[in-house]
Amino acid sequence: MALSGTDLAKQLAGYKSVDDHVTSGMVVGLGTGSTAYFAVERVGQKLASGELKDIICIPTSERTREQAESLKIPLCTLNEKSVLDVAIDGADAVDPNLALVKGGGGALLREKMVEVMAKKFVCIVDDSKLCKGLGPSFALPVEITPFCHMHTLRTIAALPEVAGCKAELRLGNVATGAKKDGDKPAVTDNGNYIVDLFFETPIKDVRAAAKALKNTVGVVDHGLFVDMTYQVIVAGKDGSCRVAGQGGDKPWW
Amino acid sequence: MALSGTDLAKQLAGYKSVDDHVTSGMVVGLGTGSTAYFAVERVGQKLASGELKDIICIPTSERTREQAESLKIPLCTLNEKSVLDVAIDGADAVDPNLALVKGGGGALLREKMVEVMAKKFVCIVDDSKLCKGLGPSFALPVEITPFCHMHTLRTIAALPEVAGCKAELRLGNVATGAKKDGDKPAVTDNGNYIVDLFFETPIKDVRAAAKALKNTVGVVDHGLFVDMTYQVIVAGKDGSCRVAGQGGDKPWW
Repeated sequence: MALSGTDLAKQLAGYKSVDDHVTSGMVVGLGTGSTAYFAVERVGQKLASGELKDIICIPTSERTREQAESLKIPLCTLNEKSVLDVAIDGADAVDPNLALVKGGGGALLREKMVEVMAKKFVCIVDDSKLCKGLGPSFALPVEITPFCHMHTLRTIAALPEVAGCKAELRLGNVATGAKKDGDKPAVTDNGNYIVDLFFETPIKDVRAAAKALKNTVGVVDHGLFVDMTYQVIVAGKDGSCRVAGQGGDKPWW
Repeated sequence: MALSGTDLAKQLAGYKSVDDHVTSGMVVGLGTGSTAYFAVERVGQKLASGELKDIICIPTSERTREQAESLKIPLCTLNEKSVLDVAIDGADAVDPNLALVKGGGGALLREKMVEVMAKKFVCIVDDSKLCKGLGPSFALPVEITPFCHMHTLRTIAALPEVAGCKAELRLGNVATGAKKDGDKPAVTDNGNYIVDLFFETPIKDVRAAAKALKNTVGVVDHGLFVDMTYQVIVAGKDGSCRVAGQGGDKPWW
């Protein structure tokens, strides 16, 4: 099936990440989402052809685990392997410091647990995800404990480090926001709730915001991935592909 | 019923905390445990006698909620009131900087959520809880997300800020450690697991340890309560009662 437009860009970035960074014998973290899908596919192809051998992969979600199993990719979890050679995943927004917003699908905690343990975390995106500053282009998800969640929501919204944001409890399906279950709070794989922070102007100090959020009592983790990215592979609808970060260009956007 | 020994000390500290700090019209946080029990009892007595009026209380556990309801103490949650005039609770260990270890009973997250919002957090203990340095006298509990918990346990144990600790996953009943359910991990009220950190020598820098633990991906919160205590009321088996911190003595132990 021929791909076009954004899907082609996602495939380009996904395939390149595996071609550039995955070699035989590695422990590899596999991300979740429509771009990471193509990285997983590529690992499967190269294992089947014999080009890659002795790979073991750690999936960041049930969905990725199922795709990887269907491709006969050997899998384990962080319980067995705490150090990864490389992890590959998409992002919802990328700024010129290679800081990311992730977790639109509600899987931010498992993704961060895996990706923070990788020697190289490679982020793969189509160029629509690039932004000058994190915040306005994609709501920042914060995973919180359900107990007194409206209190925690207010506490987060009042943090000076995220001044100006509008905080909303995510309802319905955690990944899609679909309201099948009425207006019940969305529940993550870890049994927690998600508060989405909407910004009209960019977050001023992303590192400070990340720290303040994580330090809030009642917050489990958040979708800011700061000082974690080794490289970003950016693909365009026109078939172009460009690398930012280590071993690539200075961010150009 | 006449009390003696440690129970008398707990009653002394609990009653004094209410007599000294709770006045009509206040929002009051009620802690959990055998010492906090007496503070709750005192609030109930004073409401019944009419000495206190217009009090509303926030309990830190189901157990405390039940005791308070039986005493007809008006209750709400943090969802309704985010700011407390005073919170009163026990501790498992208190150092000379009034930093605490709490959470032996596994309720550390709810306790911290409530007590961090209090204008004055008053800690009530019998003198067996005083220590020169936190760590050796009582294991430090860390609440973690269940996903890949053995990985998170290893990550915590490897933090330089808690060097020398032995990390153990808490099994059985979360509050008592009773192994009724075999060797299954203990589950907190929030659906998380507890890792207990055992120390042979005191934690060198409690503030740094608190920060490093909370910043670990997979950690929800921990039992170090640092820079939160307004005052510690310390009672002895001999009927003595002494106050450390704001409005009291310089810690003497």
